[in-house]
Amino acid sequence: MSPKSGTPKKNLMLFAGRSHHELAEEVAKHLNVSVTPQQARTFANGEIFVRFEESVRGVDAFVIQSQCPPINEWIMEQLIMVDALKRASAKRITVIMPFYAYSRQDKKHKGREPISARLIADLFKTAGADRIMTVDLHTAQIQGFFDGPVDHLFAQNVLCQYLSDNYGTSDITVVSPDSGRVRLAEKWAQQLGDRPIAFIHKTRDPDQPNEAVANRVVGKVQGRLCVLIDDIIDTGGTIVKATESLLNEGASDVVIAATHGILSDPAAERLANSSAREVVLTNTLPIPEEKRFAKMSVLSIAPLVATAIQQVFEDGSVTSMFDGQA
Amino acid sequence: MSPKSGTPKKNLMLFAGRSHHELAEEVAKHLNVSVTPQQARTFANGEIFVRFEESVRGVDAFVIQSQCPPINEWIMEQLIMVDALKRASAKRITVIMPFYAYSRQDKKHKGREPISARLIADLFKTAGADRIMTVDLHTAQIQGFFDGPVDHLFAQNVLCQYLSDNYGTSDITVVSPDSGRVRLAEKWAQQLGDRPIAFIHKTRDPDQPNEAVANRVVGKVQGRLCVLIDDIIDTGGTIVKATESLLNEGASDVVIAATHGILSDPAAERLANSSAREVVLTNTLPIPEEKRFAKMSVLSIAPLVATAIQQVFEDGSVTSMFDGQA
Amino acid sequence: MSPKSGTPKKNLMLFAGRSHHELAEEVAKHLNVSVTPQQARTFANGEIFVRFEESVRGVDAFVIQSQCPPINEWIMEQLIMVDALKRASAKRITVIMPFYAYSRQDKKHKGREPISARLIADLFKTAGADRIMTVDLHTAQIQGFFDGPVDHLFAQNVLCQYLSDNYGTSDITVVSPDSGRVRLAEKWAQQLGDRPIAFIHKTRDPDQPNEAVANRVVGKVQGRLCVLIDDIIDTGGTIVKATESLLNEGASDVVIAATHGILSDPAAERLANSSAREVVLTNTLPIPEEKRFAKMSVLSIAPLVATAIQQVFEDGSVTSMFDGQA
Amino acid sequence: MSPKSGTPKKNLMLFAGRSHHELAEEVAKHLNVSVTPQQARTFANGEIFVRFEESVRGVDAFVIQSQCPPINEWIMEQLIMVDALKRASAKRITVIMPFYAYSRQDKKHKGREPISARLIADLFKTAGADRIMTVDLHTAQIQGFFDGPVDHLFAQNVLCQYLSDNYGTSDITVVSPDSGRVRLAEKWAQQLGDRPIAFIHKTRDPDQPNEAVANRVVGKVQGRLCVLIDDIIDTGGTIVKATESLLNEGASDVVIAATHGILSDPAAERLANSSAREVVLTNTLPIPEEKRFAKMSVLSIAPLVATAIQQVFEDGSVTSMFDGQA
Amino acid sequence: MSPKSGTPKKNLMLFAGRSHHELAEEVAKHLNVSVTPQQARTFANGEIFVRFEESVRGVDAFVIQSQCPPINEWIMEQLIMVDALKRASAKRITVIMPFYAYSRQDKKHKGREPISARLIADLFKTAGADRIMTVDLHTAQIQGFFDGPVDHLFAQNVLCQYLSDNYGTSDITVVSPDSGRVRLAEKWAQQLGDRPIAFIHKTRDPDQPNEAVANRVVGKVQGRLCVLIDDIIDTGGTIVKATESLLNEGASDVVIAATHGILSDPAAERLANSSAREVVLTNTLPIPEEKRFAKMSVLSIAPLVATAIQQVFEDGSVTSMFDGQA
Amino acid sequence: MSPKSGTPKKNLMLFAGRSHHELAEEVAKHLNVSVTPQQARTFANGEIFVRFEESVRGVDAFVIQSQCPPINEWIMEQLIMVDALKRASAKRITVIMPFYAYSRQDKKHKGREPISARLIADLFKTAGADRIMTVDLHTAQIQGFFDGPVDHLFAQNVLCQYLSDNYGTSDITVVSPDSGRVRLAEKWAQQLGDRPIAFIHKTRDPDQPNEAVANRVVGKVQGRLCVLIDDIIDTGGTIVKATESLLNEGASDVVIAATHGILSDPAAERLANSSAREVVLTNTLPIPEEKRFAKMSVLSIAPLVATAIQQVFEDGSVTSMFDGQA
Repeated sequence: MSPKSGTPKKNLMLFAGRSHHELAEEVAKHLNVSVTPQQARTFANGEIFVRFEESVRGVDAFVIQSQCPPINEWIMEQLIMVDALKRASAKRITVIMPFYAYSRQDKKHKGREPISARLIADLFKTAGADRIMTVDLHTAQIQGFFDGPVDHLFAQNVLCQYLSDNYGTSDITVVSPDSGRVRLAEKWAQQLGDRPIAFIHKTRDPDQPNEAVANRVVGKVQGRLCVLIDDIIDTGGTIVKATESLLNEGASDVVIAATHGILSDPAAERLANSSAREVVLTNTLPIPEEKRFAKMSVLSIAPLVATAIQQVFEDGSVTSMFDGQA
Repeated sequence: MSPKSGTPKKNLMLFAGRSHHELAEEVAKHLNVSVTPQQARTFANGEIFVRFEESVRGVDAFVIQSQCPPINEWIMEQLIMVDALKRASAKRITVIMPFYAYSRQDKKHKGREPISARLIADLFKTAGADRIMTVDLHTAQIQGFFDGPVDHLFAQNVLCQYLSDNYGTSDITVVSPDSGRVRLAEKWAQQLGDRPIAFIHKTRDPDQPNEAVANRVVGKVQGRLCVLIDDIIDTGGTIVKATESLLNEGASDVVIAATHGILSDPAAERLANSSAREVVLTNTLPIPEEKRFAKMSVLSIAPLVATAIQQVFEDGSVTSMFDGQA
Repeated sequence: MSPKSGTPKKNLMLFAGRSHHELAEEVAKHLNVSVTPQQARTFANGEIFVRFEESVRGVDAFVIQSQCPPINEWIMEQLIMVDALKRASAKRITVIMPFYAYSRQDKKHKGREPISARLIADLFKTAGADRIMTVDLHTAQIQGFFDGPVDHLFAQNVLCQYLSDNYGTSDITVVSPDSGRVRLAEKWAQQLGDRPIAFIHKTRDPDQPNEAVANRVVGKVQGRLCVLIDDIIDTGGTIVKATESLLNEGASDVVIAATHGILSDPAAERLANSSAREVVLTNTLPIPEEKRFAKMSVLSIAPLVATAIQQVFEDGSVTSMFDGQA
Repeated sequence: MSPKSGTPKKNLMLFAGRSHHELAEEVAKHLNVSVTPQQARTFANGEIFVRFEESVRGVDAFVIQSQCPPINEWIMEQLIMVDALKRASAKRITVIMPFYAYSRQDKKHKGREPISARLIADLFKTAGADRIMTVDLHTAQIQGFFDGPVDHLFAQNVLCQYLSDNYGTSDITVVSPDSGRVRLAEKWAQQLGDRPIAFIHKTRDPDQPNEAVANRVVGKVQGRLCVLIDDIIDTGGTIVKATESLLNEGASDVVIAATHGILSDPAAERLANSSAREVVLTNTLPIPEEKRFAKMSVLSIAPLVATAIQQVFEDGSVTSMFDGQA
Repeated sequence: MSPKSGTPKKNLMLFAGRSHHELAEEVAKHLNVSVTPQQARTFANGEIFVRFEESVRGVDAFVIQSQCPPINEWIMEQLIMVDALKRASAKRITVIMPFYAYSRQDKKHKGREPISARLIADLFKTAGADRIMTVDLHTAQIQGFFDGPVDHLFAQNVLCQYLSDNYGTSDITVVSPDSGRVRLAEKWAQQLGDRPIAFIHKTRDPDQPNEAVANRVVGKVQGRLCVLIDDIIDTGGTIVKATESLLNEGASDVVIAATHGILSDPAAERLANSSAREVVLTNTLPIPEEKRFAKMSVLSIAPLVATAIQQVFEDGSVTSMFDGQA
Repeated sequence: MSPKSGTPKKNLMLFAGRSHHELAEEVAKHLNVSVTPQQARTFANGEIFVRFEESVRGVDAFVIQSQCPPINEWIMEQLIMVDALKRASAKRITVIMPFYAYSRQDKKHKGREPISARLIADLFKTAGADRIMTVDLHTAQIQGFFDGPVDHLFAQNVLCQYLSDNYGTSDITVVSPDSGRVRLAEKWAQQLGDRPIAFIHKTRDPDQPNEAVANRVVGKVQGRLCVLIDDIIDTGGTIVKATESLLNEGASDVVIAATHGILSDPAAERLANSSAREVVLTNTLPIPEEKRFAKMSVLSIAPLVATAIQQVFEDGSVTSMFDGQA
């Protein structure tokens, strides 16, 4: 008798938390797989329970969850799913967070604050995550918070393509809504064909001491179509004020584009009522019917995520999906 | 010139999450300290933010949070507080969970389940917790889930004292509501003066095949005052059914006692309408006015927690608070 | 020239410590493999040395050791084997402990005690174990002590089948020898066909103050065949006393069944001389000839362990071996 | 006989690598301590050796090293010093990197790159560092790369004070040399009294396809004193080109200010020959005589570092040194 | 109200395993403390149990255990003691192994072997040890196996002092019993006053192919008093053969000296019957009466260990106890 | 639809730092692969940057770097390469250090020193190394510094073969240049056919107190061909002095052989001018033209390394390459 031998097989299984079923199903369809059946319940006191209905032993597990409100529920659900996969002998666990939770708390803005974005990375590592896949991080440094591979996908490509198709012939200026996103605006400007850029400088008016903050537009916007970009739209206050400032400065029109539509109240109302011509978002986060309005366009990132999963599963290249940028 | 020298000082600071301010204040009062001022906010998308208003450098930090609904919010808030304390150079961080969240998922009941109670221990370790303090764990083995010291306090003492004072002269039988808590009932029985014990055996009735589950009382309860005990009362279904079974079997009266009153709906209504004479709980979890009813008594664990904090701070003995049992 | 490519192969190798060669050989036979040849020596001062005779590079290693006396020797031998496998580039290491050592010290019974069962899990993790396989844990929570997958096999199935075959037509009551195993008794009762249960309540007699502890039978046993169950029989004192109590209470007969036969002296003598009709055990631990007696039956867990190894090796399902329970 | 008791003492000791002795001595003088004597040698093959001449048992160790060229030597020396302190039983080890090495590689700019700034944090953690102290990080997110407390000091305060004293009455515009530092410029502008800001937008000229990159000034600079800021000046190419662009756009004068003067060749020559009126730096990195020129001013960060060490040693507050910002 | 403050105290407590009570008591006496009372039991199946009788919260714990046979028992007992101390909130735990177990398995002598000495270091780290204290390691590299401070004490000083006092006026050659201890012999030779050295070269006799191994003495021993040294004497075979070889080569006399007297059978008999004039050992390991013989001298290392504990407790210097060598 | 399945493939990729391109190319040629193309740059301030030109996802990566001066540069480059591989999802990373850097600092020679060889192991572990491959470690214990598999290759075989071929018929004595390498000499002596051994004893001359150190030859060398061996030749001082001592003692000739030729100045000059007949080295470290001289022979370890890589990749046996010794 001698040792038993065999040829290993590898199996891809897709798991989905309960936050954004539509996206998970769309990804599954692109991959030509089913979302793995599971029991997932929230008990009366809020504790979450998960059990998988099929064997996950040895599988290459991809666990997708959109971190929308109630955000801490969905984080915990995803952590619990990872724990269950680890204990059930999954071979490799990739956590997919289309929107990386707490990404805006990526540093201490003042003393005695948490760095919650690092904490999130550590919590998933502890639960058993081997790798993370995410889309358009608030800052690219967050990749370094995880001690392992991070596949950082760029929805910006999807958005730029849409803008080029619809507004490519206009005189575009790409505008950052504040001083912290100017570099990002520069990247968009480059991808849209070396367009000029501008940004909104929030400052106290030096001519009127003790007065409220003013929005000064820095850069040339008069008579131009302003593409006002950001990674996240949350309550929409900043972006709508920026829209008005741009039009006040003579912009011919404003199109708003962002990857992650958190759209906390009253964002939908504000945006619908704003003077912007169009608001372009992706579906990294679910956007329910009641938050949708006529001039909103929602592009799907499901093809992007599905392709990346495929590349990861087959040891292909994610970098080559983005011309070497990711 | 030579190295700088000095005598170190130690400082106790108490921190409280937002879930159960009343308990935190009561503990603070017993300790003769104030709860440390902090900013704690929940942003529009549910992300939680915390910043401490005073320097915490070098302090012996005790962070109390009652894990009640929305339970995942409060877990995350406590994790974020621990992260902020770690990064702000607190010397030692003790996490106080009067009720240990997810303690009922302390094992895989079936395959492909998480062990969430272990996950909770690991999450706090990762965030930066040095030690844990908790009250009446669902199972004592949970202590072993944390890689470090756990101060396990017994509210059972407080509850037994109350029962002795009020019912000590009756013929008491201590009853476990199911087969898993019989050992616990035995401990109560011993502390109440070597009383007899009984339990409810849930089983399909072998005489009536294919029939529903029956509650058989195992043990002698006729004509006796049944003290029906548990560690947790959640929806109250089990305990109220047990009460009826005991009275059906001839018990003279039933008093319900438990440490943790989760009281998910419709627990309060069920208990208020039940035939139990009294329901005795502690305040490890907040019990809001609308869930209180006439025959409910709520005992405070604040003195217990405050004394334990004092012992930990002063390198005294927590074990000696419980006659060597903790 | 380009990167070298190939199709990986996987190889199962079985390794056995020196404590229970018979079981290892039986498992090997079921798997149709040989136990891997090794040198294993104990030096004059008690230090243990191991060297494998064949290359173990890249193998899926299963290391079986029964933790019987001298128990610390065998723990250390297994740790050393794991270390040698890790350093010799085994791909995956599964530690098989049919009886999990120190499982009864799974919590602090009093203050200032170790939690040795957690320590055992950590020691094996440190040595290099990726996974653990074990049978009928003293408490299921011990699974949570290991930071990784634990395959928890149930010998209870094997034992229940035997009991059904031999005593299935009798009026059975399943009896727990103390208050801590009542839940376990309930599981057996269910598997044996929804039988009634009882347990022995150890208490000081309240009617006779200052008297010794009495064994009160709680539950109906008169005229019934009592199946007295436990996970472990060590010195046998408790179980034999329970047998007598049951017969005193009118039980028609007593059959003792347990998974792990530690059988420390004078267990064998006690059990042989007891009034029990039969004692049923498994061979998770070696039971030498001199400890065997006429009415003892020893069932083999080798088929169970071998099947589980096969499932783990082939990424099959262990859960499905136990109807979803493991 | 009983346990031995005593009152612990704490001792501050300052250790310095060999890269920037002048700064270490200045810090020591402010603290009124001596730099701890040590042997530090580089062997013939480049290996570094360190031995401390005095006992370091139980001390609060602060290890300062400026990460200047040969930068990998000095990183390794500091790692080795930390290892020696750990093994010699220092109680707490704070690594002081006035300039955080590899801070510009804080993310993957493209695929298949390292995140060296995270690696640096992990290397020091592994060697034994408990905490890190640093000055003006390239991006604040780097704080999150270290799993422990980071004291992030702001030299910007020192630089702004100098600029206010010398140019405060001029019409200042604060200018970022590229799109990535606009947020930083905004902070300076605020501290200098709510000044306007501008930045240089590097772009291909859309009117001249296939042409080289052009520097467009975005923002109002005509007739104003431009304070051109950055965190690091390395080869000086970008900053000197920006200076010329600003003057071309009509700026009345340009003053360059930055925290870290790496000044790789030919930075000193470029800056000396540039049209800038003054170049203001700090001494986080050594600036040798041959790299100094008439219009360069070097401000010392030694008082800042010494005060921070004192606060850390005495459990004071570093946050309060910076009005809550750090 | 404000935070509670106080001045911390530090307390030294000495804990002893059951292997060598005499040494522990002697160390305690030198320190003027008592060994902390504890329950330590070995259960019928060999499992070890420990509980401390006094509070250990916040103490500076020193846990001494001599690793003699049954060596794996005593290792496990010490691990369990460390676990109990960690969970009972000891502040710092120093493991004292006068003889470091498994130190001879400090490398892979051949492929597929363990490195048990590293494993031992890791096991103690995992259990909770902060530091290790040990005497005359088999190889000094073992210090590097522990990720933390190791106080390496030299009993060689004690032994050399004795030899100088008793044989200092003779013409001494220091002899290593094999080629691996020549460097050690050189150290002794230096400490005894720059004496010549020699060693035994075990080789197959090239003049007699296929013959057994011969012991060639390399170095000048004729007419000289040979001090034959080693760190460990186990079965004594090598050292006794070396003695005979030296006398055959004309040595005037042989004195054997070693730190650790394992003295596995038949060492005592061999040594007693050998031609050596004296055998000098220390009491790092217990030497029972039946293994003692007339020409054996046993020196105590208790003063050395006690002084080192005192230095560690008081943040003094262990290095200075050995002229900078440790 | 069902889970996606496939058969995994494995790919070997070889990566090389910039220190010793010739060796890397030679290894690649033996393996019939190309060194993976990469960008590797040193920036003006000394920071190193690496980016791989091809996808490395899922590959079995072997990263070779010879640790020659500037040694800390090359260590850091290799660490950065490992970090980049880890983050780019390489499946397994084997670090190949033909010469293990800092191997001579494998212990504390005196108090308050680092153990740099352990630090090196930990740094690579932290960066992401799964395994280490190295040649002729300074001490075999260094294997135990790494928490994982170490493939320890023996160049001694290559050197002995050469010596046998060229000097096998002479009367050889194998000589260690000091007391610490006598065991090594014994191994060579055995491999060269059970030759006698000798060593150089450095001592103060006892007949001339307060005089300088003398080199005493211990062992028989008169009229014999001395093969003077070492693992490393650094500045060559010791080995050249030893050569002269041996000739003074009547050796007929001296051949020097060592694995690692660091050859720090003035080693090449010293060796060229020495009385040694030949100096035999390997190419674990690059030996530039200007350090080569007539009587130097450099043997290649590339075939050895290539074979070992092949065995590791194919789960073959490295041990069997060395007759069970590695």
